[in-house]
Amino acid sequence: MPEITLDIIQEIAQTTPSKIILLVMDGVGGLPHVRAGKTELETAVTPNLDQLAGKGICGLTEPVAPGITPGSAPGHLALFGYDPVKYTIGRGILEAVGIDFDVRRGDVAARGNFCTVDEAGLVTDRRAGRISDEKCIELCKLLDGQVIDGVKVFVRPVREHRLVVVFRGEGLVPFVTDSDPQRTGMAPLTVKILSPPGEKLAKVANEFLARAKRMLTKHHPANMVLMRGFSQHPDLPTMSDVFKLKPAAIASYPMYRGLAKLVGMDVLKTGKTIDEKIQTLTQNYTNYDFFFVHVKGTDTGGEDGNFEAKVKVIENVDKAIPQITALNPDVIVVAGDHSTPAMLKGHSWHPVPFLLYSKWCRPSKVSKFGESSCAATSFNSLPASQLMLLAMANALKLNKYGA
Amino acid sequence: MPEITLDIIQEIAQTTPSKIILLVMDGVGGLPHVRAGKTELETAVTPNLDQLAGKGICGLTEPVAPGITPGSAPGHLALFGYDPVKYTIGRGILEAVGIDFDVRRGDVAARGNFCTVDEAGLVTDRRAGRISDEKCIELCKLLDGQVIDGVKVFVRPVREHRLVVVFRGEGLVPFVTDSDPQRTGMAPLTVKILSPPGEKLAKVANEFLARAKRMLTKHHPANMVLMRGFSQHPDLPTMSDVFKLKPAAIASYPMYRGLAKLVGMDVLKTGKTIDEKIQTLTQNYTNYDFFFVHVKGTDTGGEDGNFEAKVKVIENVDKAIPQITALNPDVIVVAGDHSTPAMLKGHSWHPVPFLLYSKWCRPSKVSKFGESSCAATSFNSLPASQLMLLAMANALKLNKYGA
Repeated sequence: MPEITLDIIQEIAQTTPSKIILLVMDGVGGLPHVRAGKTELETAVTPNLDQLAGKGICGLTEPVAPGITPGSAPGHLALFGYDPVKYTIGRGILEAVGIDFDVRRGDVAARGNFCTVDEAGLVTDRRAGRISDEKCIELCKLLDGQVIDGVKVFVRPVREHRLVVVFRGEGLVPFVTDSDPQRTGMAPLTVKILSPPGEKLAKVANEFLARAKRMLTKHHPANMVLMRGFSQHPDLPTMSDVFKLKPAAIASYPMYRGLAKLVGMDVLKTGKTIDEKIQTLTQNYTNYDFFFVHVKGTDTGGEDGNFEAKVKVIENVDKAIPQITALNPDVIVVAGDHSTPAMLKGHSWHPVPFLLYSKWCRPSKVSKFGESSCAATSFNSLPASQLMLLAMANALKLNKYGA
Repeated sequence: MPEITLDIIQEIAQTTPSKIILLVMDGVGGLPHVRAGKTELETAVTPNLDQLAGKGICGLTEPVAPGITPGSAPGHLALFGYDPVKYTIGRGILEAVGIDFDVRRGDVAARGNFCTVDEAGLVTDRRAGRISDEKCIELCKLLDGQVIDGVKVFVRPVREHRLVVVFRGEGLVPFVTDSDPQRTGMAPLTVKILSPPGEKLAKVANEFLARAKRMLTKHHPANMVLMRGFSQHPDLPTMSDVFKLKPAAIASYPMYRGLAKLVGMDVLKTGKTIDEKIQTLTQNYTNYDFFFVHVKGTDTGGEDGNFEAKVKVIENVDKAIPQITALNPDVIVVAGDHSTPAMLKGHSWHPVPFLLYSKWCRPSKVSKFGESSCAATSFNSLPASQLMLLAMANALKLNKYGA
């Protein structure tokens, strides 16, 4: 298949008054329940989604490639129209931007966890018993603001046990390994260089961790810090540059807000519930021509192995659909960044159902929005990054390619 | 579709105790019989394959690209997870490695045939009446060990009329044409250079052929040699490096053994029948986590235009399936390297049916394993090199890609 690069899109994209709503149900793709034989989406009662599916095109997206299980960043980048292999974003940067930290060029950000270590120094709980947000804020203040070898260290709370560490100074290159062993029963790892330019950062990070251990001694269960995903700003072309859109993000979870910011979306203040998000959408509807609305609950249900909880979240989203269609947008896309089957309790490689409604569709004539029906359409293996092109086309925002 | 390079796979692959069996029915894809309207696979009675297909995912692989008829090497490389256009292997090298010849860097290998030429020097039988293995050994000894312009020439028997010629010396570059005219009624071709660095090799090869003609005069029907596929060692990354697997090959035919060796598989001693191969699989089951089991008969039946023979081989394979499932592997893949429709008497470009069974499948709900049913699934055009990624994913051997 010929590759449509962002350069080509930039040439043919045009600004028009038409509006696109991209509703992402995080991790919506599932696997059939062992007894009932239906997936979460197929089990959910979704009259509104089914009706929209029936009028639009349906199919399955391939977020990265067959067999590849995407993390949240590549999963979303693809939905925003970016090749998720060509454009990559480090976890640390994503988390830092997600809490509105003003990341500058040259900064290195890492994602952190407060954790519990025993007397032998071995990790016994990677999440420090999920301490409260308040405790997290208190401990971050304790560690924040140190200067190590001329490098200023910012320590910022995210939520519960999670934090962000940003190193600001000359000559920092994130070619280093994680300190997070990713399992209990092991000691936190020393940060090691992956290549010589990482030396200064490794030294500073290890000194920071040594100091953190001393400073946190009396704060059991949060008596140590783990860090991973050291990274710098990816400097992506923005959606305004590429797609000529004025895009807004409606998401409550920091990582997705951060990701949206990295592709140049305005990140709107909103609440955690789908109703609060729809309210934000309605209030801001005239100010933008592209809306990314993010629903986290589907992924959480899947990660927890809670089939029923995931079904419930999908049914709640379905109830909100009439409020979206009432806005009469030109294009509505309902999609997922990856599958998170409750049966697997985690992200998976399975293709993800999507629907795209506009008045210019050649309808797929699907009667129920679900994995099996989507697999039976002609869009059963659409590279997720091409869904944005279909949305743009259906909004009549793409000029002819070539003379 | 984003390109998943071997580097990316190497980053996310992990060693686990789970086991993958890749059963390749060479050339399994077919075309409908002119009268009965069903392909070889659809005609065969295959209750066991059908049952496995029903529980797993099914589809068609595209070995190289639409319309491209693959040789055995690209067909298999793709199934092993290697892009068959990026990674190429010469026929000569393949044959040399397949007979356990110790190919060294700088050597050039060619595949050879003993053939029959008439008094005018025209080829009357490209296979010299398929002389016996004994005769082949005798004639290879006759030609072996010559030194031409400082280049040592190794001549080794393969089977029947087939041999390998390896040239060892300074400055040999395989940028030369074949001497095999690929049809009767023509004289053997002079080896010509494709570009100047091939000059020395062309000179030595032509001198070798001239000598061979003299030395074989009295050995009718094997009174001449044809050569093709001049090539050097491809130096591929191994499956252990890339996929973190401990792979074993169970194949009796030299070329496939050679190919397996080139990607770093242990090539196990086995017999020619499917039962002997399953026995080898069972005996070595605990020692490896990936098994490539090769069945040649399907391709032979196809090449011979013998529809019924190909059907029989498929039915024999089907009878062996319970012995494979009894081992309880985590992933079973049944696939083909290309199609060899009996109606075409040769390899063809048609996509190839596959099935993949694991407990993490979203089943394709196919009731009969065949071309038509596979074409009706969502995996109806899977690049063959991505089948390995699906196998790895279903064996839970791939970590998440990206944060």
